Amino acid sequence: MSHELKKYREQIDSIDDELLKLFNRRAALAQQIGHTKGDGPVLRPEREAQVLQRLQEQNAGPLGNAAVAQLFTEVMSQCRALEAPLTIAYLGPQGTFTEAAALKRFGSAIQGQPSATIDDVFHAVESGAAHYGVVPVENSTEGAVGRTLDLLLNSNLKICGEVMLQVHQCVMSNENDLSLIRKVYSHPQSFGQCQGWLNTHLPHAERITASSNADAARLAAEESFAAAIGGAQAAEHFKLKVLAHNIEDDARNTTRFLVLGNQQVAPSGGDKTSLVLSAANRPGAVHDLLVPLAKHGVSMTKLESRPARSGLWEYVFYMDIEGHQQEARIAAALEELKQAAAFVKILGSYPVAV
Amino acid sequence: MSHELKKYREQIDSIDDELLKLFNRRAALAQQIGHTKGDGPVLRPEREAQVLQRLQEQNAGPLGNAAVAQLFTEVMSQCRALEAPLTIAYLGPQGTFTEAAALKRFGSAIQGQPSATIDDVFHAVESGAAHYGVVPVENSTEGAVGRTLDLLLNSNLKICGEVMLQVHQCVMSNENDLSLIRKVYSHPQSFGQCQGWLNTHLPHAERITASSNADAARLAAEESFAAAIGGAQAAEHFKLKVLAHNIEDDARNTTRFLVLGNQQVAPSGGDKTSLVLSAANRPGAVHDLLVPLAKHGVSMTKLESRPARSGLWEYVFYMDIEGHQQEARIAAALEELKQAAAFVKILGSYPVAV
Repeated sequence: MSHELKKYREQIDSIDDELLKLFNRRAALAQQIGHTKGDGPVLRPEREAQVLQRLQEQNAGPLGNAAVAQLFTEVMSQCRALEAPLTIAYLGPQGTFTEAAALKRFGSAIQGQPSATIDDVFHAVESGAAHYGVVPVENSTEGAVGRTLDLLLNSNLKICGEVMLQVHQCVMSNENDLSLIRKVYSHPQSFGQCQGWLNTHLPHAERITASSNADAARLAAEESFAAAIGGAQAAEHFKLKVLAHNIEDDARNTTRFLVLGNQQVAPSGGDKTSLVLSAANRPGAVHDLLVPLAKHGVSMTKLESRPARSGLWEYVFYMDIEGHQQEARIAAALEELKQAAAFVKILGSYPVAV
Repeated sequence: MSHELKKYREQIDSIDDELLKLFNRRAALAQQIGHTKGDGPVLRPEREAQVLQRLQEQNAGPLGNAAVAQLFTEVMSQCRALEAPLTIAYLGPQGTFTEAAALKRFGSAIQGQPSATIDDVFHAVESGAAHYGVVPVENSTEGAVGRTLDLLLNSNLKICGEVMLQVHQCVMSNENDLSLIRKVYSHPQSFGQCQGWLNTHLPHAERITASSNADAARLAAEESFAAAIGGAQAAEHFKLKVLAHNIEDDARNTTRFLVLGNQQVAPSGGDKTSLVLSAANRPGAVHDLLVPLAKHGVSMTKLESRPARSGLWEYVFYMDIEGHQQEARIAAALEELKQAAAFVKILGSYPVAV
């Protein structure tokens, strides 16, 4: 071993010694806080969000902010688990993106509880079998997850947080080489996401739309000289070879998940509020819903309509707005919104995803 | 917020500030080491094992040693990924225990590459598409993973490490309540693992053996008043409810995975050597293989026979011994073993699982 390498390793060892002491001091403090809180919630989502935000602002590198968030999420996870690990129900099976979202939010020191359906996740949290639940709510290739939205409408659970996860596309085929590909199957939205890559690497291949990426993989599996675009899981399922990974043009291609719990999360300083509402059945009703927001200068980040189950051609609207329901400006806007809408339910205020 | 809570949080904030600085200093040093090494391997398994071992010895708590290992694995993972994340092929799909083993060994800052078969994992590492591969090799319920052993025989890859992962059993059923269960299906080995729990919680239920835990779950899914024992994944697959988690009597119930690479790992101080050998076809031949080990005081931790593909009724033996092939004592024993055996191949020396 070179003298230089030895010197660096000694420096790392002494940093590690300090890290170990600090980890344990932090864990001991977390234990004391646990005793102070008594039977209160183990997790304070607003506090964890503030910790990560503050550290990212201070971060001078070379570690990136995502790495800093991941490291401190793990530190908090291990400190929390000293008392008892949190039980987190998520839409299984294990290995879905939803499990990855649960780990990203809660770190590795959790008791994960894979559930067969979104309904089961809600039920696990409602019955107290799990402390929190994680479910997908919007998928950039598949759009809104209707079942999650429908269950939110009637459940007493609160949204306690959100997680954003990158979605990666790959090219899969029976063939071993891209140069053999004459046809590419995919969902139109996935084609859209990978246009740049396709123009560069498969400019002459025919593009054929499929109803879903799974269907595209199935079609490609039945043919020679054909490929499909989709997630790596589809490749495994249909025993296709992955010819290229991460072909999406936009690295921001993400899926959004919600964290569900029995807790009203306090303001963190960077929050979002989700609500569901229905408009009165008259012309201009939807416009009227937006007036209180505009008046109080509240930004709407999402508006999504869903057919109401109550009757034909009636809709409910899922809305995300910036800010916390305890902020005066938001509270005033929500109060007026309640006057304007036929029905309003606040699903929760929670920290914006890190 | 109470005065006490505020005080604790301030203390945690100042610890976090120090942690952040140390993480970044460590990352910068790791970068410098990377430049010193030039094109050498990014990962030094023996060094990482030494780091974890040293810190666990120093650990004064309250964090447990498993938590300390997990935290520093993540720190090393993020530092390594600053240059470029390691690509790790593993037996997929995502969410299998093999993925969990890959994350346990390499931390979260990796590019995971799920492969459809064990053969594909070997191929990914052999072709350079992945830096390392992770495959199961022994399962406490299913025994040895034959395909992994067979591929090791002919591959040029080296074993660079091992990972132990706990396996959890649960009780699953169509019923909602344990008190309704009259029959329990499972693999005999799983019955053995959960005997204590069964005697306490289901003393009067009939125990019926199945060929595998998946088969047990299938049988339980077709009946009323029946349950199966197995992993939570089987419950999901057959849409059964999990009535109790972690029912295994022995918390040490584990699966063992191997890390495969193109690297001869240097001694870490706590190592194992794996080899495969065949005995000459004469009486007492197997005994003769063990003589060199006994003579040099080398402990054998595993001996497993597999039918050789070369001919009828011929066997190869997979053997794990304590120590590194570069230690004089081990080297001497291996030298003599080569004389005694018809065939010997050293699969690798690597740090014992943390």
